[in-house]
Amino acid sequence: MASLLRLPSLLKPEGQVTPRSVDFNAWYTDVIAAAELADYGPVRGTMVIRPYGYAIWEAIQDYLNVKFKETGHSNMYFPQFIPYSFIEKEASHVEGFSPELALVTIGGGKELEEKLVVRPTSETIVNHMFTKWIQSYRDLPLMINQWANVTRWEMRTKPFIRTLEFLWQEGHTAHATLEEAEKEALQMIDVYTKFAYEQAAIPVIPGRKSRVETFAGANRTYTIEAMMGDRKALQAGTSHNLGQNFSRAFGTQFMDENSQIEHVWQTSWAISTRFVGGIIMTHGDDAGIMLPPNIAPIQVVIVPIWKKGDEKSAVMEAVSSVQNTLKEAGIRVKVDDSELRTPGWKFNFYEMKGVPIRLEIGPRDVTNKSVVISRRDIPGKQGKEFGVSMDPSILVDHIKGRLVEIQASLLQKAIAFRDSNIVDVSSYGELKEAIAEGKWARGPWSARCFPFEQPEGAKKCFMTGNPAEEVAIFAKSRRKKLIAGAGIRSRNIGWRR
Amino acid sequence: MASLLRLPSLLKPEGQVTPRSVDFNAWYTDVIAAAELADYGPVRGTMVIRPYGYAIWEAIQDYLNVKFKETGHSNMYFPQFIPYSFIEKEASHVEGFSPELALVTIGGGKELEEKLVVRPTSETIVNHMFTKWIQSYRDLPLMINQWANVTRWEMRTKPFIRTLEFLWQEGHTAHATLEEAEKEALQMIDVYTKFAYEQAAIPVIPGRKSRVETFAGANRTYTIEAMMGDRKALQAGTSHNLGQNFSRAFGTQFMDENSQIEHVWQTSWAISTRFVGGIIMTHGDDAGIMLPPNIAPIQVVIVPIWKKGDEKSAVMEAVSSVQNTLKEAGIRVKVDDSELRTPGWKFNFYEMKGVPIRLEIGPRDVTNKSVVISRRDIPGKQGKEFGVSMDPSILVDHIKGRLVEIQASLLQKAIAFRDSNIVDVSSYGELKEAIAEGKWARGPWSARCFPFEQPEGAKKCFMTGNPAEEVAIFAKSRRKKLIAGAGIRSRNIGWRR
Repeated sequence: MASLLRLPSLLKPEGQVTPRSVDFNAWYTDVIAAAELADYGPVRGTMVIRPYGYAIWEAIQDYLNVKFKETGHSNMYFPQFIPYSFIEKEASHVEGFSPELALVTIGGGKELEEKLVVRPTSETIVNHMFTKWIQSYRDLPLMINQWANVTRWEMRTKPFIRTLEFLWQEGHTAHATLEEAEKEALQMIDVYTKFAYEQAAIPVIPGRKSRVETFAGANRTYTIEAMMGDRKALQAGTSHNLGQNFSRAFGTQFMDENSQIEHVWQTSWAISTRFVGGIIMTHGDDAGIMLPPNIAPIQVVIVPIWKKGDEKSAVMEAVSSVQNTLKEAGIRVKVDDSELRTPGWKFNFYEMKGVPIRLEIGPRDVTNKSVVISRRDIPGKQGKEFGVSMDPSILVDHIKGRLVEIQASLLQKAIAFRDSNIVDVSSYGELKEAIAEGKWARGPWSARCFPFEQPEGAKKCFMTGNPAEEVAIFAKSRRKKLIAGAGIRSRNIGWRR
Repeated sequence: MASLLRLPSLLKPEGQVTPRSVDFNAWYTDVIAAAELADYGPVRGTMVIRPYGYAIWEAIQDYLNVKFKETGHSNMYFPQFIPYSFIEKEASHVEGFSPELALVTIGGGKELEEKLVVRPTSETIVNHMFTKWIQSYRDLPLMINQWANVTRWEMRTKPFIRTLEFLWQEGHTAHATLEEAEKEALQMIDVYTKFAYEQAAIPVIPGRKSRVETFAGANRTYTIEAMMGDRKALQAGTSHNLGQNFSRAFGTQFMDENSQIEHVWQTSWAISTRFVGGIIMTHGDDAGIMLPPNIAPIQVVIVPIWKKGDEKSAVMEAVSSVQNTLKEAGIRVKVDDSELRTPGWKFNFYEMKGVPIRLEIGPRDVTNKSVVISRRDIPGKQGKEFGVSMDPSILVDHIKGRLVEIQASLLQKAIAFRDSNIVDVSSYGELKEAIAEGKWARGPWSARCFPFEQPEGAKKCFMTGNPAEEVAIFAKSRRKKLIAGAGIRSRNIGWRR
């Protein structure tokens, strides 16, 4: 046994995970490796999503799939190879995407006559097909979604946040009127917002993108912007009103009720595996990540504790009984009964993995028919409860209650963090000061997003002194690049959806 | 209203769908279009899977996902771009796959230093990663699965059956011993077999592939072979014992319990969107396809029937009540209340789409508080029931019972068809006769050995006329051995999994 413990471990020894408070970016890449969320693929900028990370993505899929179907969308699948000529048809689309395309030029051993684009997004091929399927207003609205991989040749990559290939869903709809399309685009950003708040416990700010960051081919892009633990902004989902840009480029027309031929009005909207990165970057501390119970692959981990050999069978019997109780109650529970690791090692490991609740069961607990509960979101003794009854009728409700509390508490903490880091500014000086402090500035001008929620009364642009129509959000973003004129550091240049 | 009815319809007029009994292949492509299962993509050989076809794939996914997890597998995701050098590492793998690769040679506007393969299957990249993750026997077995798209540059394509890009799941496992790997490969072909029988109502024949059709890189390939409606064989799923071929090529090693370094033993197994094609080709008649209730996106379609305006509200009220009753009972139900199509048109349309049960509700049914039921699998009057009570306590059980019957009946019919088309042969003459009649032949076959010394040039199977890679030695032997599937005309040349 001793020799096994000397084998190299995939997990860096405790302490080698950079503390979040010391270096946020180093912490992020460290926990992704140590919590076995993802790994680097062999091709530069690609990522392998490991089972624990993929299970978070599956939780996102499960929730959104239900919502998409409830709102009238059907899943389907479009080919990923798009003729190069399609990309060129919509002027701003080609301008936006051509620098980051992957091209297939050889197929079946032969040079292809026309290069094929590996889809960076599917508006062009969707419109090509919509043109075949739509004839009359009776074929509208056409509302579909696909779960797929997409490829964008990013130069600076980061696991989950920006990778050459990523997974996403992309919704595409066609409508008879602009109003319907606008309503749809807003409806979907609302679905995303609810998901972010209720499932991921991320208090995103929904709003409209500035013109600079509008999707290449859209008239208007709605966004949900999330504040990460380092106060940088992350674009966590977008919904586009495409107007008639693609329908004009691809001739997607219908006969309306008055027998007039019109171009359809369209939307598209997407959330990607980037959202998993957003969850990691929102909740966490020096010890690791914290997963909101609603999307945690493991909600409760049970660590059996026994020393003498004769303690083992009684402890394991109780552990197994509690496990079944929780499982039958629909709680995602895992028992770690490995004898190669100490309980202390396991405590650290599952804290790093962000499991919301840990149960410890030892010989004394078996005698008392009780368990010890630790909450991931409240470190130390304050988050511990001793002597909670093992009786299923008590334990299940107790755990379920705690999971609800943890879900709410993570959201509340994130809201408090966000609000304490947004400063209302009314002058260029105040803006500069806020940004210098790493905060977000909210003030009358044009920027990262224009929040739906607007203060009452007349507003004046703090830059020019002219009347301002809207209040905007300003923020540093992960990518240290300045948007011309806007004064915002953005994490999202080149990431258009 | 009249003018609308003159608009071109996506659906070919009845009668333009080639009858199945006249031309099976034409029927297949016709129903795929008319039932809106799939469409052709803009790039040769690609396919768009439309919502109705995709929902069948989702039913396959839902079932298999549960079974994969029950048998200890976790989902994850590997990048689709594989360095070309990886493909070359396993000798028979590169030989098998290199003729049908799609290659990315340009990324982000620049010629790449190393060409990237768009995955045709993932053994190579999986092994590259497994080598990083596996150190000790404690890391084994490693059992994962991914749902993904794959690309093979096929020259002759057919919707669902063989397309340039298709969707599949690919399982990959690593074990400490050959025995474990063999057990896993057999377990997964068993999962596929159960799925085929119980969900898809396809009585597949599980067996071992001949060497010619063994997966490029496997020691042994297990297959489920299905007899289509035209008596051709379809390879519907495969499971491979890869031995140590990939672990040796990629150095995937572990320290065993005796501190010895060994190569892992591996399996891989897959089912693809081809299975949807298999379902279509198994069940059906001149009127269209027939979907087994367990995987039918719509299990019950309700067609309201009314003529006079004042009949409508009572009928629609009853329809809506029945719809809710069935929906609450977990039955997948659709109401087609379009006023642009006649009930007769709808009858034909949903028969073509293979919906297992149709309910008709008209004014007289409302008065009698009853419905008319038609079974898709029993055409004409024999499949009709009149006066079935609308009372939820009666109707739900009645419908559920009928769905179970239809599921069983489709399987029984397919078994009868299969068995009447497999001939037991005991001589070369009988074999030739069976093959000439388009049947499958089953007979004792005792190739004593496949000589190391093989003649040069192309070879043709002297029994089936299919390409043969090997020459075998035949001789009378004491033990008669039965090999399932020997002498089957195969639709699968070039389709290795």
